[in-house]
Amino acid sequence: MRMWSNLGELGLDAGKKARLHRILYQHGLRNGTALFLPYDQGLEHGPRDFFANPAAGDPAYIARLAVDGGFNGIALQVGLAEKFYWDYAGEVPLILKLNGKTDIPPDDQALSPLHATVEEAVRLGADAVGYTLYVGTPAAEADFAQYRQVRADAGRLGMPLIVWAYPRGAAIEAKGGRDSFYAVDYAARTASELGADVVKVNFPHPDKRAGVPRAYDAGFSSQQAIDAVVRSANRTLLLVSGGAQAGDETMLDKARQSMEAGATGLIWGRNVWQREHRESLAFIARLQEILAKYPRSAQQVTVSAPQA
Amino acid sequence: MRMWSNLGELGLDAGKKARLHRILYQHGLRNGTALFLPYDQGLEHGPRDFFANPAAGDPAYIARLAVDGGFNGIALQVGLAEKFYWDYAGEVPLILKLNGKTDIPPDDQALSPLHATVEEAVRLGADAVGYTLYVGTPAAEADFAQYRQVRADAGRLGMPLIVWAYPRGAAIEAKGGRDSFYAVDYAARTASELGADVVKVNFPHPDKRAGVPRAYDAGFSSQQAIDAVVRSANRTLLLVSGGAQAGDETMLDKARQSMEAGATGLIWGRNVWQREHRESLAFIARLQEILAKYPRSAQQVTVSAPQA
Amino acid sequence: MRMWSNLGELGLDAGKKARLHRILYQHGLRNGTALFLPYDQGLEHGPRDFFANPAAGDPAYIARLAVDGGFNGIALQVGLAEKFYWDYAGEVPLILKLNGKTDIPPDDQALSPLHATVEEAVRLGADAVGYTLYVGTPAAEADFAQYRQVRADAGRLGMPLIVWAYPRGAAIEAKGGRDSFYAVDYAARTASELGADVVKVNFPHPDKRAGVPRAYDAGFSSQQAIDAVVRSANRTLLLVSGGAQAGDETMLDKARQSMEAGATGLIWGRNVWQREHRESLAFIARLQEILAKYPRSAQQVTVSAPQA
Amino acid sequence: MRMWSNLGELGLDAGKKARLHRILYQHGLRNGTALFLPYDQGLEHGPRDFFANPAAGDPAYIARLAVDGGFNGIALQVGLAEKFYWDYAGEVPLILKLNGKTDIPPDDQALSPLHATVEEAVRLGADAVGYTLYVGTPAAEADFAQYRQVRADAGRLGMPLIVWAYPRGAAIEAKGGRDSFYAVDYAARTASELGADVVKVNFPHPDKRAGVPRAYDAGFSSQQAIDAVVRSANRTLLLVSGGAQAGDETMLDKARQSMEAGATGLIWGRNVWQREHRESLAFIARLQEILAKYPRSAQQVTVSAPQA
Amino acid sequence: MRMWSNLGELGLDAGKKARLHRILYQHGLRNGTALFLPYDQGLEHGPRDFFANPAAGDPAYIARLAVDGGFNGIALQVGLAEKFYWDYAGEVPLILKLNGKTDIPPDDQALSPLHATVEEAVRLGADAVGYTLYVGTPAAEADFAQYRQVRADAGRLGMPLIVWAYPRGAAIEAKGGRDSFYAVDYAARTASELGADVVKVNFPHPDKRAGVPRAYDAGFSSQQAIDAVVRSANRTLLLVSGGAQAGDETMLDKARQSMEAGATGLIWGRNVWQREHRESLAFIARLQEILAKYPRSAQQVTVSAPQA
Repeated sequence: MRMWSNLGELGLDAGKKARLHRILYQHGLRNGTALFLPYDQGLEHGPRDFFANPAAGDPAYIARLAVDGGFNGIALQVGLAEKFYWDYAGEVPLILKLNGKTDIPPDDQALSPLHATVEEAVRLGADAVGYTLYVGTPAAEADFAQYRQVRADAGRLGMPLIVWAYPRGAAIEAKGGRDSFYAVDYAARTASELGADVVKVNFPHPDKRAGVPRAYDAGFSSQQAIDAVVRSANRTLLLVSGGAQAGDETMLDKARQSMEAGATGLIWGRNVWQREHRESLAFIARLQEILAKYPRSAQQVTVSAPQA
Repeated sequence: MRMWSNLGELGLDAGKKARLHRILYQHGLRNGTALFLPYDQGLEHGPRDFFANPAAGDPAYIARLAVDGGFNGIALQVGLAEKFYWDYAGEVPLILKLNGKTDIPPDDQALSPLHATVEEAVRLGADAVGYTLYVGTPAAEADFAQYRQVRADAGRLGMPLIVWAYPRGAAIEAKGGRDSFYAVDYAARTASELGADVVKVNFPHPDKRAGVPRAYDAGFSSQQAIDAVVRSANRTLLLVSGGAQAGDETMLDKARQSMEAGATGLIWGRNVWQREHRESLAFIARLQEILAKYPRSAQQVTVSAPQA
Repeated sequence: MRMWSNLGELGLDAGKKARLHRILYQHGLRNGTALFLPYDQGLEHGPRDFFANPAAGDPAYIARLAVDGGFNGIALQVGLAEKFYWDYAGEVPLILKLNGKTDIPPDDQALSPLHATVEEAVRLGADAVGYTLYVGTPAAEADFAQYRQVRADAGRLGMPLIVWAYPRGAAIEAKGGRDSFYAVDYAARTASELGADVVKVNFPHPDKRAGVPRAYDAGFSSQQAIDAVVRSANRTLLLVSGGAQAGDETMLDKARQSMEAGATGLIWGRNVWQREHRESLAFIARLQEILAKYPRSAQQVTVSAPQA
Repeated sequence: MRMWSNLGELGLDAGKKARLHRILYQHGLRNGTALFLPYDQGLEHGPRDFFANPAAGDPAYIARLAVDGGFNGIALQVGLAEKFYWDYAGEVPLILKLNGKTDIPPDDQALSPLHATVEEAVRLGADAVGYTLYVGTPAAEADFAQYRQVRADAGRLGMPLIVWAYPRGAAIEAKGGRDSFYAVDYAARTASELGADVVKVNFPHPDKRAGVPRAYDAGFSSQQAIDAVVRSANRTLLLVSGGAQAGDETMLDKARQSMEAGATGLIWGRNVWQREHRESLAFIARLQEILAKYPRSAQQVTVSAPQA
Repeated sequence: MRMWSNLGELGLDAGKKARLHRILYQHGLRNGTALFLPYDQGLEHGPRDFFANPAAGDPAYIARLAVDGGFNGIALQVGLAEKFYWDYAGEVPLILKLNGKTDIPPDDQALSPLHATVEEAVRLGADAVGYTLYVGTPAAEADFAQYRQVRADAGRLGMPLIVWAYPRGAAIEAKGGRDSFYAVDYAARTASELGADVVKVNFPHPDKRAGVPRAYDAGFSSQQAIDAVVRSANRTLLLVSGGAQAGDETMLDKARQSMEAGATGLIWGRNVWQREHRESLAFIARLQEILAKYPRSAQQVTVSAPQA
C-alpha cells in the first residue's frame, strides 16, 4: 500500500488544499511535515499542567514559543485565540479547537461539548479546526451529531478538519485501554471513515493486549503498529500526540517511528513546554531534526497533468 | 509573569473596549478597578436573603444604593432590569445576567438556564452581560451550548461577557469542594479558555485539600492561591465574589489580597446590603479605600502611538 | 417599603400600559383593582371540575358570567378563545393562556408545554397573555426556554405578561410544599426577577413549616406572609389565586388580606363558578365589595406634568 | 410652550436614555448640553475640505481633537470608525453615521444611500446612530424605506437616532432654498414626526423669503426662527449644524441664539478643524463658554421618586 | 502626517491581519510591499485584451505566471478561481473579485453587479476579496447596498476587503474625468470612509483640471498628487492600478512615485501580460526592484510587548 502525502492526491477542494499547503509548506520546515503546538491543557486538565513551568501558564509565552520554535501551527481554544492570536496573526497558523471539556467529571460517558464554530475559525484567520471525537463512548449519538455539523461547515468553508481521535469509555477500557494498538488503530480508521482531513492519535501500544480482539492479540512491534495505524488513516493525514511528559529518548523514538511509518508530523505540548524555555527550544530542534529526514513531496500533481 | 490590566492589551474589539472603559474609568473610582453590586439573589436564593435588611428586597432601594455608593455596575436579571433600570439609566452601568436558577432543586446536575439574550442587554443599554458557567457539572453539554450562543452574540454585538465561573457537581465536591484552590483555579482558567472577558470567582481556599489533585495538595497561602488564580485567568479580568456574609475584617483581608494579586475588583452583594443603609455605605467606603490603592493603568497603549 | 400600583411607575412601555389601563380602569370596578375569571381547569384538571355545576362546563356560560359579573378579564386556552371570545370580543378583556397541561402524569418533573403564541393573542384581541412557570421544577431548562420566547414576544408586541408562578417538584415538596410561605414568596420573586408584568400566586401558608429554610420557620401570620409576598413581587402586580373551593368566609378573608397587602386583585375560578348562577353573582358582588375598598391610584404621574 | 430637555420626559426607553445620558452628562460639560464633532466631510465633500488644514485629513488627528477638546461625541462613517475608534473607545462617544454620499452627482434627486447598520453601531460601542434624511427630495420613497428600517432597528436595540434633517431637491430650491426658515422648520418637524430622538438642522434664515409659503413670508428675527424650530422638534432634541466656515463672531451669535432657543447643542466640524490645532481648541473653548450658560436639567424625574 | 503601513496599526481584527500578513510578508518580496496580478479583463473588456499575447487568454498560463513571477496575489472572478486556483492553491494568494461587468453598455449609470460572495472566497481559500465601487455614479444606491453586504460579510469572516475605487458617471466626466487628481483623491477617501482595508486607484493626473473643484485647480506635481491620495486613504492600504499598457519607463516612474508616496504596492495586469512570457518576467523583475527599495515595517507593535 502506498503512502499518501501529496496534497494534490488527497481529494481536497481548493480551500482545504490552500490552507494545508500554507501549514505544511510555508511554515515550520516547509517540507511537508508538521510540528504542532497544542495548548488546550488549561481546559482539558486545568492549570496544574503549568506547575512544572509556571511561565507556560501564560498564553503569550506559548504563542511566542510557537513563533520562535518554528511550529507549523498552534492549537487553541476560542478564548485564548481571541485574546492572544492577534499579536502573531499570520506568523504561525492557528488551529482553532472547537470542542473541549474539563477532566473534573469521570470519563465513562465522555463527550467533549462544542463551544465554537468553523465560522469563528474563519473569522480568526485559522488555517484548520480541531474536534475531539471520543471513539467508543456511549455518548456517540451526541458526539456524532456535533461532529456532523462541524464536518459539514468545514466542507462548506474549505477549512481542514483535524480530528483528535481518542478512544474513551468503559467499553474501550475493558478491551485493552485507550492506548492499545487496537484502540488507536480503530480510532484512526474511524476518523478517516467520518471525513477527517487530518487525524491526531496517541502512539499505539501493541503490548496492551488484555481484552483486545484476537487479531490484535499478537506480537506486533511498535513500528508495525504505527505503520498499520497510518495505513488505516489512508488519505487522512496523521499526527501523533505526545501526551504526558515521558523521557526524551523514548519520545524521540516514537517520533522517529511515526515519521518512518508515514505520519505527517507531531502534535506535542507538555513534552515541549513543561520545561524551561531554552530547554524547550533545544528539544524542538531535536524533533525538527527528525522531521527534516522525512520530507513529503511538495511537487504538485496538478490534475491537469498526466501522473500515470 | 506579568499582570494584564490595560484595556488596550486584552485583545478586545472596539465595542467591548468602549464598554469596559466606561465601567472602569468613568464610574466608581475611575482608576481601572471595579466594585460591582450583584443583585440576583432574589432568584438564586429567594427572598430569604432580604430578611436581614428588608429594605434590600426593594430593587429601587438597591439601584439607589448602587448610584449613591459609586459602584461600577449593578448586576440584575432581566425582570428587575426592565422595571427598575430606566430610573437610573446611564447613571450606573448595568450588567444584565442572562441565566439564573432557583436553589430549590439539588446541585448535582447544576445548570443555570438561559432566560435572556445579549440583544436584550443591548436594548436595555447594559454595558456587560453575565453568564453562570458551572465548571465540572455533568450538564456541561447543555451549559456549553447555551454559553456558545451567548459568547457568539456578545462578540457580534461588542458586549463584554462576564462569566460567573462556579465549580459545581458531585465530582467537584469529591475533589475538595467548590471553594478549594484547585476548583477556583480551574474555574478561572476555564472561563479564560472559553472566551470570558471578565471572570467572577470565589476566593480560593488552599486549605481545602481533601481529594484535590496532588499539585494542589501543598501548603499554599491564601495570597499564593489568589495570585495563581489571577495568572490562570491571564487576559480575562478577574472579579472576586463576596459570597455569604462573613466578618468584615475577614472580608476586607480577602479584598486586599485579591487586589494585591492583580484582580480588577470585587463583586459583593450580601456583604454590602445585608445591613442598614448607612452601614452599607460605610462598608463600601472601606472597600473603596482598598481599591484606591491599586489603580490599574488607564494609559492607553494605542497601537498608533509610539512610532511618531 | 412602598407599594407599587400606579401604572406609570412600573417600567411599562406604551403598549403594555395601554392594555393594562384597559383592564384596570375601563373594566370591572374601574378603580385599578382586578377580578379575573380563570377558565383553564378543563385542561388542567379535566371536566370533573364541572360536575358541581354542569352549566359551568359550557364556555359560553362562563363567558357570559364574565361579562355579567363585571370581571376585569377572562383567562382562556386558545381553543376556547377561538370559539367563544368572538361573542363578547371587547366586552371583557381576554387573557390568552399560552401553555397548559393535563394533571394525568405526576408533577415531579412538572412542565407546562407551550401551545399558543403571543402573536395569536394579538390576533384574538387579547389584552394579556398567561404563562405557567413551575418554580423549582427539575425541568427548569425547558421551562425557561419556553418562557424566554414568550417574554421576548410579549415585550416586542407590547402585551402584558401574567405569570402563573407555581412551586412544583420533589424538592419543593420536601421543603414545605407548594403553598408554604417560603414557596409562594420565592415564586413571586422569581416571576418578578424573570420579567412578569403581573404574577399570580396561591395564598401563602406560613404554618407549613416542615422543611422550609430557617428564615421562614417562624411564627408569621397570614397577613405578614401575604404582605411579604407582595413586596417580593415589587413592581410586578400581584394576583391571588382562589384554588380549590373552600368556605366562603375563609376565602373572603384571604381576599381582604390580599388587598390589604397591596395585591392588585384576585383570579378566582372554581370558587366562583362551582355553584349555581345566581349564587355566583352574589359571591362576585361580595368580592367586589372588598375590592372597592382598595382603589389603586389612577392618577398618572406623567413625567411631563408638574415640574415646570 | 415648554422646552423639553429632561431625559426622563422624552418618551425614551432605558437603552436610549442610558446612551443619551452618557453623551449629555458624562462627557463634555456634563450639563446636558452637547458639542459634537462631525467628521463625514471626506465622503460628503471629498478631501478638498482638508486643504485648509491638511492635518485634519488624518482621522487620528480628529479623534485626538475630539478627546482633547472635550466633545460630547464624534460622528464618523463606518470605515473610519472601524479603523480609528478603537484607539479612544469609550473616551469620547461615537455616533456612527449610517448613510452618506459623495457630492459628485447633482442634488436634484438627493438620496443618501445606507452603507452601515444599527447593529454595527452596537458592535463598535457607539452611543448613537446618524441618518441623513433629505426632506423634500423626489427620492423620498427610497429614503423613507431605508429610514424605516434604521428607526426600527434603533428602537429594537435602544440606540438613539440622530437625524440629519436636510431640505433638498428642486422643489425646496424653488421655495426659498435649503436654509430658509420655512425649510428648516419643516425639516425639524419632519424628523420629529418620523421618530428621530435628536435632529440636526442648519440654522434657519428667515430672510430667505422668495418662494416660501405665506406664513413664513414675514419679518421674523433669527431668534424667532430658531425658537420656532426648537418648538417644532418638540420632544426631539435639537442640534444646530455649523456648515461651511463663516466668521467666528457670526457663528458664535448663531450658537448663542440656538442655545437660548432651547437647542441641546451644536454639531460643528469645518468651523472647528479648518484651522490650526491651537486655534481649534481656542474656538472650542469659546463655544463651551456659551454652552456652559445653558445647563439642561440633569435632575432625574424618576417615576418612583416623589410619592414617598 | 504619518504614513500607515504597519499591520498592527490599521484597526484590523485577527483574521484580516493574518490574511494580510500572509499576502505581504509570506509571498512576493516578503517585505510588506505587494505586487498583484489582476486577471478580470476577460470580463471587464472581453478577450480583445488577449490579442496582444494570445497565451494570456489561458488562465492556466496566467496562474503559472503569478507563481513564477512571485506575485503577492492574483485577482480572479469566481469562474476562473473555481477552475484554475486548485492547481496552485496556497502557492499564491487568491483575491476573489466579487463583482464585475462587461464594457458593452455605456458607463453613465455604471454599476458592477455582484456575482459571488465572501463565503465563496473563504471556501476557495482566498486571502482577500475585491469589490468595484463606482464613485460618483448615479447608481450609488444599488452600489452601496451591494457593498454594504460585502463589507459586513468580510468583517464577519475576517476577510480583507480590497476596493477597486473607480470614479465613474457623467458628473465625474464633467468635473475633470476619472483620472483627475480630484477624482482619484475623492475615490481613495471614499473607500476609506466606507471601510475598505485596501484601496486600488488609478494613478492621479493633476493636469486634468477642466471642471475640477477650485482646490484641485492648481499646479500640483504627480508626486504631490499621489502623496495626497495615499494620505486620503489613511489607514486603508493603497494599491496603484496599471491600467492600459503604456511605455515601460512611464509606468516604472509611476511605480516609483507611488511607492515613494507610501503606497503598499501595485496591481498591474495588462502592462505585465500583454507581452511575451520572458518579457513579462523581465518587466516584473524591474517592478520588484522598485518595491524592494520600499520595505514596509514588518515589526509588530504587539500590545503585549514592551511594558515588561
